[in-house]
Amino acid sequence: MLLRTHQCGNLKEQMVGETVVLNGWVQRRRDLGGVLFIDLRDRSGIVQIVFNPEFSGEAHAIADKVRNEYVLAVKGTIVKRDPETVNENLPTGKIEVQITEMDVLNGAKNPPFFIEDGIEIDESLRLKYRYLDLRRPEMQKTLQLRSKASKIFRDFLDENGFLDVETPILTKSTPEGARDYLVPSRVHPGEFFALPQSPQLFKQLLMVGGVERYYQIARCFRDEDLRADRQPEFTQVDIETSFMTQDQLLTMMEELMAKLFKETLNVDIPTPFQRLPYSEAIGKYGSDKPDLRFGLELVDLSDLVANSGVKVFANVVKGGGQVKAINAKGCGTWSRKEIDDLGVYASRYGAKGLAWIQVKDGEMKGPIVKFFSEDELSGLRERVGAEDGDLILFSADSKKVVADVLGNLRLKIAKDLGLIDESQFKFAWVVDFPLVSYDEEAKRYVAEHHPFTRPRDEDVAHFDGDPLQIRAQAYDLVLNGYEIGGGSMRIYKRDIQEKMFKALGFTMEEAHKQFGFFMDAFEYGTPPHGGIAFGFDRIVMLLAGSSNLRETIAFPKTANATDLMVDAPSEVNTKQLRELYIDVTYKPEKDKDSDQEQA
Amino acid sequence: MLLRTHQCGNLKEQMVGETVVLNGWVQRRRDLGGVLFIDLRDRSGIVQIVFNPEFSGEAHAIADKVRNEYVLAVKGTIVKRDPETVNENLPTGKIEVQITEMDVLNGAKNPPFFIEDGIEIDESLRLKYRYLDLRRPEMQKTLQLRSKASKIFRDFLDENGFLDVETPILTKSTPEGARDYLVPSRVHPGEFFALPQSPQLFKQLLMVGGVERYYQIARCFRDEDLRADRQPEFTQVDIETSFMTQDQLLTMMEELMAKLFKETLNVDIPTPFQRLPYSEAIGKYGSDKPDLRFGLELVDLSDLVANSGVKVFANVVKGGGQVKAINAKGCGTWSRKEIDDLGVYASRYGAKGLAWIQVKDGEMKGPIVKFFSEDELSGLRERVGAEDGDLILFSADSKKVVADVLGNLRLKIAKDLGLIDESQFKFAWVVDFPLVSYDEEAKRYVAEHHPFTRPRDEDVAHFDGDPLQIRAQAYDLVLNGYEIGGGSMRIYKRDIQEKMFKALGFTMEEAHKQFGFFMDAFEYGTPPHGGIAFGFDRIVMLLAGSSNLRETIAFPKTANATDLMVDAPSEVNTKQLRELYIDVTYKPEKDKDSDQEQA
Repeated sequence: MLLRTHQCGNLKEQMVGETVVLNGWVQRRRDLGGVLFIDLRDRSGIVQIVFNPEFSGEAHAIADKVRNEYVLAVKGTIVKRDPETVNENLPTGKIEVQITEMDVLNGAKNPPFFIEDGIEIDESLRLKYRYLDLRRPEMQKTLQLRSKASKIFRDFLDENGFLDVETPILTKSTPEGARDYLVPSRVHPGEFFALPQSPQLFKQLLMVGGVERYYQIARCFRDEDLRADRQPEFTQVDIETSFMTQDQLLTMMEELMAKLFKETLNVDIPTPFQRLPYSEAIGKYGSDKPDLRFGLELVDLSDLVANSGVKVFANVVKGGGQVKAINAKGCGTWSRKEIDDLGVYASRYGAKGLAWIQVKDGEMKGPIVKFFSEDELSGLRERVGAEDGDLILFSADSKKVVADVLGNLRLKIAKDLGLIDESQFKFAWVVDFPLVSYDEEAKRYVAEHHPFTRPRDEDVAHFDGDPLQIRAQAYDLVLNGYEIGGGSMRIYKRDIQEKMFKALGFTMEEAHKQFGFFMDAFEYGTPPHGGIAFGFDRIVMLLAGSSNLRETIAFPKTANATDLMVDAPSEVNTKQLRELYIDVTYKPEKDKDSDQEQA
Repeated sequence: MLLRTHQCGNLKEQMVGETVVLNGWVQRRRDLGGVLFIDLRDRSGIVQIVFNPEFSGEAHAIADKVRNEYVLAVKGTIVKRDPETVNENLPTGKIEVQITEMDVLNGAKNPPFFIEDGIEIDESLRLKYRYLDLRRPEMQKTLQLRSKASKIFRDFLDENGFLDVETPILTKSTPEGARDYLVPSRVHPGEFFALPQSPQLFKQLLMVGGVERYYQIARCFRDEDLRADRQPEFTQVDIETSFMTQDQLLTMMEELMAKLFKETLNVDIPTPFQRLPYSEAIGKYGSDKPDLRFGLELVDLSDLVANSGVKVFANVVKGGGQVKAINAKGCGTWSRKEIDDLGVYASRYGAKGLAWIQVKDGEMKGPIVKFFSEDELSGLRERVGAEDGDLILFSADSKKVVADVLGNLRLKIAKDLGLIDESQFKFAWVVDFPLVSYDEEAKRYVAEHHPFTRPRDEDVAHFDGDPLQIRAQAYDLVLNGYEIGGGSMRIYKRDIQEKMFKALGFTMEEAHKQFGFFMDAFEYGTPPHGGIAFGFDRIVMLLAGSSNLRETIAFPKTANATDLMVDAPSEVNTKQLRELYIDVTYKPEKDKDSDQEQA
């Protein structure tokens, strides 16, 4: 076999005259009057190789029989192309290789789709033949990007003294969170392992264990009904530290992000990142993961309209709700139909209606204008900064509904108006999440994050008054409207933990019973600690400029939690089930396809 | 909180006079007449801190109340110790820190065992309180070593163009190998995922997919009845390459091993490694994973004794068996009892008896001596190189039994005689494994490795004659008697694959049916490829100088596949099972403990 000396995509004009051996796949083959041209592809790229009976009759004869996706080993000399045949679209487009010797390493059937970028075929066909899909340059690039991103995370964390520690995949079921994947135990009949939803428990125990700085690029599992951007198994960069403050940790993570984006995309990310209190994120953007690449902020008008003639507004404010608006710049000319469509969109997020005012020729127009006084109108106009040609959109409802409605309208309008600069990366920390919320159904406070999340020191006094006022030392990292990471400082002192459990309505004894050995572990000298986890698949997706999580994963599952390539899950034989002491209770009554409705 | 400026173990004599803040745990506390000494421990090591009312009355008063494993933050000045109080056993033993300010970050209950090296307590107690066990310096060192080893593997592979690609954990059951762990699917009732025994399938498909060089530090799962050195989940460094020869791959892996041992243990490993054909390994050492740190080689005497008066020997040779011996140097003085004990040991490996000859005062002695002629005796003596004081041990049986018996006797005697230099690392590749063996029961050839293992090119002709003569392009990496890695070049050409399946007794059509889409994948232009997988847990074990695999894993399972800390596996609630459409069929009749007999 002719052993590769170079990679196709790495050949350079300066190498003209050199003899090289290439190994790769036939991208395409053209016969131009007895001279054969083949685009040879390997992981690095493509180069044109030329077969001419003048260089080698034998090689030319063999080349005449090759087809797309044949695997070749070729030897030849790099030459300059004629100026008129230079291909400016190809990094190697100024050269070609004149082949003097060749082996066909393997033949190939005709693939079910072309091995090239931008193919428009059903994704399920690509997933079934993933081993061919991965040959396409854009998939190769994504795999390379993912590998590189992983390395950058690791190098940074290693340099900063973090230990890579593997935590178990076969572990214990914790029914409090999302649904667990279970694994029946053969050795312990009737008992089950669970796959981890995250290494949360273990990483905190590693801090108890004195590891001080831990990381792991960890596989996590959730048996949820999947949405487009979820996978049953996903990867997170899991981090936990001892003896660091929230601020120290966030600063370090900013450096990490800056390094990641510099070394992958060559983009400079300014640090420090904006720290946006949760209440401000909700207030200004109607979202705890705001897209900060554009303005269109929510403006609170509650005080202005509290006594107005618009009864709905006045009543909402009296009832403790909010009236807010966004100013859709330049949308004042939108037709009634277009505005009605916005109303339909808003109703998806709970809006009972969508009030609006257009500003045209210096005047404010719309059904509700007549119920306002002149003063109210000018106050309103000033508050939202409305000018000729603008469209003011209102939401009057509970704080939550107003945020959902206007937050989503804000995103929609920004997209419609092309306000989003896709080349920008706008990072922010959303901080000061509330520690607890009130569960109306259960008539008690519940932990917003988890019961081990640390409150801000200065808010601890609120445990005795209004626990809703307590801000948590919890934080999410937000990028362009995606949450790409999140974490918290953890409670490590018994007195704070007692206050927390008391607020949640149970005693330390009850907590010990529910959280078992984990609570015991904390009694033996737990250091102050806290951490973060990054959604690695989503970060790679954003780095790749993609909006499909599956593109970032070599062998992903469908939204139906199926691997179309290996055909998993699948039936197993009864001996396997017998050994595990389990039985399938499902009796199919309908045909197979109807199962999928449950997905 | 006083935020750490330095780590305890990193303080140096040159830093005398500096003010530092340390965070750590109380290792021990002594009160010497009003002056308190605390050994403060963090991940880096220990330093002595001193509380004296003269430095700070307040700090001294607080320190008076601390106990072992309390978590402290302290501020103070580094000073030289008095010469008579220098502790030469401690890297920081020449200095101490005079504390002027302190916080107790957390208290601690008395731990169930001392947080120090070399404790002799039941391992199950350590595993139950693993979060305390991990605080012990030797466990910290092992975690750090493991993290470092992982980084060295990754750096090397990254530098050599390998992509880190994650393959699925939720995949398909392949009942041919060891027993799979199964995961019931909720979305597809009655169907199951399986956890991968290795990423073998996926890594070969990545080669079909044009990735060319792949690696992953991959979690693998086997539901086997565990032995001391097995874990239900384990980690392997999984590697696959395209367009490389076996020799290129092995050479590259030698570099990797040399780098690993240099950068962790500062040991120089000479390359290239010895390449030991399988037949030679079995012939000389009675093992395919020989410990090469000592000689004691097996010597074939079959020709010498074929016609001797020792009927058993003569008959074995006539029957196609072997007579071999090892010369236990200096054991000629062993008592009859000691030799009988060796016989009992040998019988474990299938020996029906253990013939022996002692060389004493120039004469050969023992029950079988009288059946040999003088010529035979002197030939034998010369062949094994026996001198006064030696003991010759014989095995006469089938090739396999002889290898097992003498191979294991060789190891035992070397240990008994202290022949093994524990500071040595003797690497070797065992190569040229047989491609197939004959299954007497099934009356057919079976693949020794797997049916996709590539035969040596020059042996392909044997497919039509004697397939047992075919050597595979398969290799194991052996270190000090452990197999630490193994792999093979894979078949990629259809004609070779057809010959292989024909030898195994089935047609390509049957193979397609059995191996499904994997066979299809190979039709679309598969490059020549091959790979290797290293047992990462075992390599870390050898680097750590340990003989217990569990010591290298942060949260291991017992031989009974149980996690004693989190109590997994465990029962789950019926709602969870109902959602998964499964039922437990096991009806406990006896008490719980009896289950464990199955482990």
